[in-house]
Amino acid sequence: MQKNVDILVIGGSAAGIVAATTARAFYPDKAVMIVRKEQKAVVPCGIPYIYGTLKSIEQNIIPAGHITDAGVEMMIDEVVSIDSEKKTATTVSGTVISWDKLVIATGSVPKVPGWLKGTDLDNVFTIPKDCQYLDHVQHAMEGSRKVVIIGGGFIGVEIADELSKKGLDITLVELLPHVLQMAFDEEMSVRAEEILTTSGVKLKLGCKVEEIEGDGKVTGVRLDGGEVLEADLVILSTGYLPNTTLAADAGIKLNELGAIRVDEYMRTENKDIFAVGDCAEKFSFFTRIVKGLMLASTACSEARIAGMNLYKLSRLRTFGGTLSIFSTAIGGTTFAAAGVTEQMAIERGFDIVSASAEGIDKHPKTLPGVHAQRVKLIVNRESGLVLGGSVIGGVSAGELINVIGVIIESMMTIHQVLTLQLGTHPLLTGPPTGYPLLKAAENVAKKMRQ
Amino acid sequence: MQKNVDILVIGGSAAGIVAATTARAFYPDKAVMIVRKEQKAVVPCGIPYIYGTLKSIEQNIIPAGHITDAGVEMMIDEVVSIDSEKKTATTVSGTVISWDKLVIATGSVPKVPGWLKGTDLDNVFTIPKDCQYLDHVQHAMEGSRKVVIIGGGFIGVEIADELSKKGLDITLVELLPHVLQMAFDEEMSVRAEEILTTSGVKLKLGCKVEEIEGDGKVTGVRLDGGEVLEADLVILSTGYLPNTTLAADAGIKLNELGAIRVDEYMRTENKDIFAVGDCAEKFSFFTRIVKGLMLASTACSEARIAGMNLYKLSRLRTFGGTLSIFSTAIGGTTFAAAGVTEQMAIERGFDIVSASAEGIDKHPKTLPGVHAQRVKLIVNRESGLVLGGSVIGGVSAGELINVIGVIIESMMTIHQVLTLQLGTHPLLTGPPTGYPLLKAAENVAKKMRQ
Repeated sequence: MQKNVDILVIGGSAAGIVAATTARAFYPDKAVMIVRKEQKAVVPCGIPYIYGTLKSIEQNIIPAGHITDAGVEMMIDEVVSIDSEKKTATTVSGTVISWDKLVIATGSVPKVPGWLKGTDLDNVFTIPKDCQYLDHVQHAMEGSRKVVIIGGGFIGVEIADELSKKGLDITLVELLPHVLQMAFDEEMSVRAEEILTTSGVKLKLGCKVEEIEGDGKVTGVRLDGGEVLEADLVILSTGYLPNTTLAADAGIKLNELGAIRVDEYMRTENKDIFAVGDCAEKFSFFTRIVKGLMLASTACSEARIAGMNLYKLSRLRTFGGTLSIFSTAIGGTTFAAAGVTEQMAIERGFDIVSASAEGIDKHPKTLPGVHAQRVKLIVNRESGLVLGGSVIGGVSAGELINVIGVIIESMMTIHQVLTLQLGTHPLLTGPPTGYPLLKAAENVAKKMRQ
Repeated sequence: MQKNVDILVIGGSAAGIVAATTARAFYPDKAVMIVRKEQKAVVPCGIPYIYGTLKSIEQNIIPAGHITDAGVEMMIDEVVSIDSEKKTATTVSGTVISWDKLVIATGSVPKVPGWLKGTDLDNVFTIPKDCQYLDHVQHAMEGSRKVVIIGGGFIGVEIADELSKKGLDITLVELLPHVLQMAFDEEMSVRAEEILTTSGVKLKLGCKVEEIEGDGKVTGVRLDGGEVLEADLVILSTGYLPNTTLAADAGIKLNELGAIRVDEYMRTENKDIFAVGDCAEKFSFFTRIVKGLMLASTACSEARIAGMNLYKLSRLRTFGGTLSIFSTAIGGTTFAAAGVTEQMAIERGFDIVSASAEGIDKHPKTLPGVHAQRVKLIVNRESGLVLGGSVIGGVSAGELINVIGVIIESMMTIHQVLTLQLGTHPLLTGPPTGYPLLKAAENVAKKMRQ
C-alpha cells in the first residue's frame, strides 16, 4: 500500500500527539498523520496510579477524540524503516508512507541492567508505556503480597506509595543514599522517605541489588550485603533509554546517551526530520550540558516547538535548553522542583546562595485542609539570577512550582522576585504577609548582603 | 510619655506588619515600632469565612508571634496626629513618638452611601476590619433568617456563599448587571452567578437599592422598582474608602480618590514618610491610570517595597504600577484574574486578541477530585504582550493565576508563552498534552494569524 502525507509523526504518545495537533493548528492546509503501534496510548505519568487510585488501565488512556477532531489521521501500525533520501517510511504491514516533514516521537523503553541476573524470571516486571503489558502487571499484583521495587526514582516511589495503600508488603531498594536524588536536594528526599516509611514502605537505601532469585518465578532479591528480600513480584524501575533504533538504522545521528541529536528547533541534521520527546536530545537550560531527562511536560514543550516550526522557523524559541520541572505527590504531600537543585548547582560549579522559608498553603492556618508549605530558592550570587527552586506543600504546589519555573525561564533576579506581585486568597494560597516564596526570596537577599 | 524609634509604622494589619518586618530584615540595626488600635488584627481576606468555614473570629487572627520574633515592637494605641516637621506622632493616650522614618498603613474603612436611608437601623452592618464589630455581626446573624447583602463585589459574594451553607435565606443585590464585574469578564461572572444560585442565593442584578426600611431594627430593603426584600439583617458591602484623615490632617497630599499620593517607592512628597496598602495611591501597571484597588496581596507587595527602601533606594522596583491579581472560591470553584479583563482592555483602548481553552486540573479525567479548568488570555495584538488572563478551576487555580501574573509582570509575549516549559503531574495539574494555559496561548496565536 502507498500513502502520501505532508507531515508524518512516528509515535503517538504525549509528544507525538502534541507535535501532530500543533502542526495542524499552525499549518491547517497540511495533511498530518500519526503512525503508532498502540490502539490506545497510556497517559505516561499516570501509570503508577493504575495500581491504586485509578481502578484500571482503561482509566488512564489519552483521549483520542481531540486528535481526530484536530484533523490528524491516525494509523495503527509500526514503522520499521525510514528512508531519509526518498522521504518515505515503511511499516510492518508493508505500507509505504511518503512524507514531506517527518517527526520522530518514538519515546523510550525501560532500561534493564544487563549484568543483573534473574530479570527474566516470572513476576519480574519493568514499567513500559504498553497497555497490555501493564494490564498483565496489574493482574500479577493481585495475587502478590510481597513486592520489591528496584529503583527509587519517580516511577519507583510513586508505585510504592500507591501499592502501600493496598496493604501490600513493599520494599523499595535504591542504590543512591536517597530516593529521588536526581531531582531533589537531600532534605526533600528525606521528607519523602519519612512519608513512605510512615505508609509502611520499607526502604533499603544505598543498597546494591546483586541478583534476583527464583526458579521460574521470582522468590527474592539478594542485596550485595547478602541479605535476601522475599518477593512474590519485582518491579524494575531503573530508568529508561531513548527508543532510537529506527532512527539509528536510518542513519540519523545519536548523541552519547543514545538520543537523537537535535538543534534548538528539534531538527536533526536533515532539516525535514525532527525528533521530540524522550527519544530526542536535551540540553541543560543553564550549562548546555547534555541531559538524560525524560518528562512528559518537556516532551510536549519540544513537540509544540517542532510542530510550530516544521516549514519555517516562525516561532523562535526564546528559552534555550531544558528547564526540568519535576513534581509528584507522595502520601498526599506534593514535592516539586524547577531548575537546578542546590547539590547540582554546587557540582556544576555555580556560586550560589540558597535559602528556604516555611509557611502554609491556605490562611489562616485554622482553615480546614491547610497544608504546610516550604519553598527553597537557589540563586547565583553575583548576578542574582534565580537558578532553581523547590516546594513541599499541598495540591497547589503543583502550580506554584510553575510560578518558580516562569521566574527562572524569564531570567528574573532575586531583586525582581522581591517586588513581585502575587495574588493570595484564604482558601487558595499562603498569606500575603508570609507567602513562602517571597519569604524565601527575602532570606536569600539577607544572606547575599552578609 | 515620650518614645523614640527609628521607624514608626502606623497601622498593624497586613501592610503595616509586612512593612515593619521587612524594615527589620533589611535594616537590622534600626528600632521599628508598630502602633495600632487593635489588640488583635483580623486576617482581612479571611473575614467572609468567619461566618461559615471558620468557627469564630478567634480563628481568623494574624499571628503576632512572628512580628515580635522579628524584633518589631508593638504598641496598642491610636495615633491622633502626625507632625511632619518635628517628626513626631501623638497618640490618644498622650504618648509622643519621635521617628526618623514613618510608614502610614492606616488601611480603609467601609464606604456607606450617604444618600441611602436606613443604614443606621439595628442589624444593618458593614464589614470593617474590626474584631469586636465583626463578632457582634456574627452574633446578630445567629438570630437571623433572612439576610440581604447589598453589593456583589468580593466581600458580598464570599459572605453570600458562606451564609448559604448555613441554610439562611440570602438575597444579594448588585447595581451592575453582574456580580464581580469590576474584576472579571462577563462569562466568569455569569458562571459565579450560576454557582451562587445553585447554592440557593437569590440574585437581584442591575438593581438599585432605594431605602433600607425598618423601625429601630431593619425589616426590609426596598429596590427602586418598588419591590421590598424582607430582611432580619442587612450587610452593606458597597466598597471601602482609604482611611486617610490622619494623613490629610498632617498636610500630606491625597489624590482624587482620597488615597495618599506616593511615588514608585511608596514615598509621599516628604521622603521620610511612606504610605502603603489600602490608604496609599495605586496606578495601573499598563496605563498609569489611578486606581481604587484594595487587595492584601498588593498592599503587602507595596509594604515590602517601602520596607526595603526606607533609608535608600537600594531595591529598585522593577515593575511599576499595580498588577491586580484577584482570586476567590465560590461553592468550591476558583475564580481568578490577573491584569486587565477583556472588557477593561477594550474600554481602555487596547487593541487586543483574546482566546480561551478548557481542560481539567488533574489528569486523566478519571482521577478523583478532577475539576474543570478554563483559562483565558488577553493579548495586545501587535506587540504580542500578554495583558491579562483568567482562570476558572479548582484549588490549584489560585497559584496558576500567579503563573499568569509572572508572565504579565515579566512582559512576556504570547510567542514566549507558546514555548514555555511548565511542569505537570497527574495528581496536581492539567495534562502536558492539553495544559489549558498553553492551549489558550495557541488559540490566541491562531487568531493573531487570521
